[in-house]
Amino acid sequence: METSKFSKFSAEFLGTLVLVLMGCGSAVIAGANGTTGVGLLGISFAFGLSVVAMAYAIGHISGCHINPAISIGMVVTGRMKASEAAYYIVAQILGGIAGAFILMLIASGKPEYSLAANGLGQNGYEAFSPQHYNLQAGLIAEVVLTFIFLLVIFGSTSTKNINGGFAGLAIGLSLVLIHIVGIPVTGVSVNPARSIGPAILVGGQALSQVWLFIVAPIVGAVLSGIVWKTVLERN
Amino acid sequence: METSKFSKFSAEFLGTLVLVLMGCGSAVIAGANGTTGVGLLGISFAFGLSVVAMAYAIGHISGCHINPAISIGMVVTGRMKASEAAYYIVAQILGGIAGAFILMLIASGKPEYSLAANGLGQNGYEAFSPQHYNLQAGLIAEVVLTFIFLLVIFGSTSTKNINGGFAGLAIGLSLVLIHIVGIPVTGVSVNPARSIGPAILVGGQALSQVWLFIVAPIVGAVLSGIVWKTVLERN
Amino acid sequence: METSKFSKFSAEFLGTLVLVLMGCGSAVIAGANGTTGVGLLGISFAFGLSVVAMAYAIGHISGCHINPAISIGMVVTGRMKASEAAYYIVAQILGGIAGAFILMLIASGKPEYSLAANGLGQNGYEAFSPQHYNLQAGLIAEVVLTFIFLLVIFGSTSTKNINGGFAGLAIGLSLVLIHIVGIPVTGVSVNPARSIGPAILVGGQALSQVWLFIVAPIVGAVLSGIVWKTVLERN
Amino acid sequence: METSKFSKFSAEFLGTLVLVLMGCGSAVIAGANGTTGVGLLGISFAFGLSVVAMAYAIGHISGCHINPAISIGMVVTGRMKASEAAYYIVAQILGGIAGAFILMLIASGKPEYSLAANGLGQNGYEAFSPQHYNLQAGLIAEVVLTFIFLLVIFGSTSTKNINGGFAGLAIGLSLVLIHIVGIPVTGVSVNPARSIGPAILVGGQALSQVWLFIVAPIVGAVLSGIVWKTVLERN
Repeated sequence: METSKFSKFSAEFLGTLVLVLMGCGSAVIAGANGTTGVGLLGISFAFGLSVVAMAYAIGHISGCHINPAISIGMVVTGRMKASEAAYYIVAQILGGIAGAFILMLIASGKPEYSLAANGLGQNGYEAFSPQHYNLQAGLIAEVVLTFIFLLVIFGSTSTKNINGGFAGLAIGLSLVLIHIVGIPVTGVSVNPARSIGPAILVGGQALSQVWLFIVAPIVGAVLSGIVWKTVLERN
Repeated sequence: METSKFSKFSAEFLGTLVLVLMGCGSAVIAGANGTTGVGLLGISFAFGLSVVAMAYAIGHISGCHINPAISIGMVVTGRMKASEAAYYIVAQILGGIAGAFILMLIASGKPEYSLAANGLGQNGYEAFSPQHYNLQAGLIAEVVLTFIFLLVIFGSTSTKNINGGFAGLAIGLSLVLIHIVGIPVTGVSVNPARSIGPAILVGGQALSQVWLFIVAPIVGAVLSGIVWKTVLERN
Repeated sequence: METSKFSKFSAEFLGTLVLVLMGCGSAVIAGANGTTGVGLLGISFAFGLSVVAMAYAIGHISGCHINPAISIGMVVTGRMKASEAAYYIVAQILGGIAGAFILMLIASGKPEYSLAANGLGQNGYEAFSPQHYNLQAGLIAEVVLTFIFLLVIFGSTSTKNINGGFAGLAIGLSLVLIHIVGIPVTGVSVNPARSIGPAILVGGQALSQVWLFIVAPIVGAVLSGIVWKTVLERN
Repeated sequence: METSKFSKFSAEFLGTLVLVLMGCGSAVIAGANGTTGVGLLGISFAFGLSVVAMAYAIGHISGCHINPAISIGMVVTGRMKASEAAYYIVAQILGGIAGAFILMLIASGKPEYSLAANGLGQNGYEAFSPQHYNLQAGLIAEVVLTFIFLLVIFGSTSTKNINGGFAGLAIGLSLVLIHIVGIPVTGVSVNPARSIGPAILVGGQALSQVWLFIVAPIVGAVLSGIVWKTVLERN
């Protein structure tokens, strides 16, 4: 493996590790209850600020995708080769698993914690949706939210956009926004690696429902890439 | 329809769709209750971060007005032709309706949701104001808040302002601010398209009161444009 | 009055109007209670984001002081003439009164509101401190917090600082910070114009205690200017 | 002492004073309770925005480390001489003590406050962890969180990163993130000076446990520096 590839792989691995550890960690450790915990707004900021932090830390190394849906979107819009996307995605999935594992280590240090009861911030629908939204709502939400997320990514990183330095901030804050709206529906994935990591360690329903959080973000990203190229920024 | 116009139209349509889906969606899906929901502060961030996200995504395509009051303000200050504003406004209203429709689709996936009881984040006054503010207060608030919002837009996007890259952030954060203060009064419009979308789908009082959220933002925008040109940045 | 002076005067008037209307408005209208209102964090964001919004709106016109302590600090550090500061301060105080007046108009539109019981977000100490902090604590807090606020202003707008575009954001976010910490002590002034406006309309204790919120911010600003020039950025 | 050194020393002293006064102050004065206080999210913003404020205020003077772990990380990555780091660290520790002292002065102005009962925002583990996390969890959390914090610092201030102006924002917002996740575990240190200041004034358990908040952040910073140089940005 060549140096540059190794650095990019490591950056994507570490970035996704941070996203899962900190995003899911805010839910598991700091809690959703607004009076004694950080609340849904705090969890939303945790996911989004993980992206802001990583964008300015590793953006100049790997582009900071830390999300297979983004790498696939970059392939659809012709900004990345499929072969490069493939090893990015491997790094992202491994990073997501590693982040979930470190989260489990820390969370286990609280006497009341149990993996079965408290989980690792996994996503779900129907009985496992935070507010029992059905499968259809979960599917629409994940497709639409990923579609929007990718629009922000395509636009803010476009070579036609003179405010490129703000991309990390705009993308991260759009992920805050997406979580503010979507947590009650599915817990918000829009990122297969963020869902696969916790699902593998938690198992059970998390694992049996993880297909939706792989399929829907990819569908949203592909649709967004097509709309971007054919409608919004066609040459 | 020429390419460029089509892209601008699409950008304004999608941008307003996102603003209504995410802003109103934060209220309908994530809820105003601070302990189990995102609270008024979370809803305020949702509206404002929608603008931040869209500003950096489509700002370089259409200018990201996503609000008829802004397009009218741009005409008043001589930055846009009335004919261009007209099709921007059509796109914005259609986008607002589409955003409200997608929100309805997702919200309906929760067993307890009903359109009649939970609405779509529509605006209102008197009995339909979140805290029962009267018509006069609603009118003053919408005029004044739109006036302030447009001042930020005129100033941060002025060619005399060397920090133009920050405009998207400043404008979006000023919308957070406006919602922090104004939600109890009317739910905050300052944007006819944001009010028309939900009102058409909800009907009833939302539709019969929507006139205020068309008239007041336009009055505020026109006044702001006049003050801007004659007092603050006259040549 | 010459054009340029008139525009600067108007900008300082409108900017301070917005700060008082929106900052104090968040407390009076949206409420400090975290479950049904925006909470102390929301009020903190309202004050700080008012500065962010105004900095990018009118910063290129007047410098966006909207605070007599800042104008005095600019005189102390040799960046402004005393005569110019004088009319800035007149504009700021008038703007603060106008902002408090518009807030009263809107707040009165809620049936339960009364000026005597709910006030206009005025500052206070001892029995009128939000959590009954004594005079000494209020004095120390206002001097120290203004000292810190001015350090951020001097540093972020220094000609030696290459990241000048970020000043509006840094200064506004530092005001969020100052409110997060200081609201329980005095409600936070660090700005005589912000205190004088509500105090004049509310009268009573607000007016009899307003001296502290004139004296302490000025002392903090002068000390900060001296430390800045003699210790941090001496030539 | 030469001028430049004196200014840098003063900047690090004042910056760390602000971080401890405002960060710990938000917890002690404004409280963790989400309904009547700023909540965990507010405390998280206080720590992070202290860094944002100071980064743009004194970054051009001293680099704004205000944290011994950062100065040590800069030595590890070859960006700073050990002798310079040494007097930076002295300034930081003195600043942390001064910040805790001013906080004590202000907090004592509230009738109900007592140093023994309410403390000064000190860190702790086991019985003194906010949610009783054990020693192992506290150790892992502090090492991992400091590791992540330093990655953001190395990357956002790298000469290879063209968006250097955003570093203050990215670093400060990453500290918000770290507090959102970590407060329940240890109260979050990732900064020996932030822990030593309150510990010296509070004494007792705070002082006997402070070793962890010196050792773990240094270990995290050294590991992060090694990973940065050998994996992410090797030449």
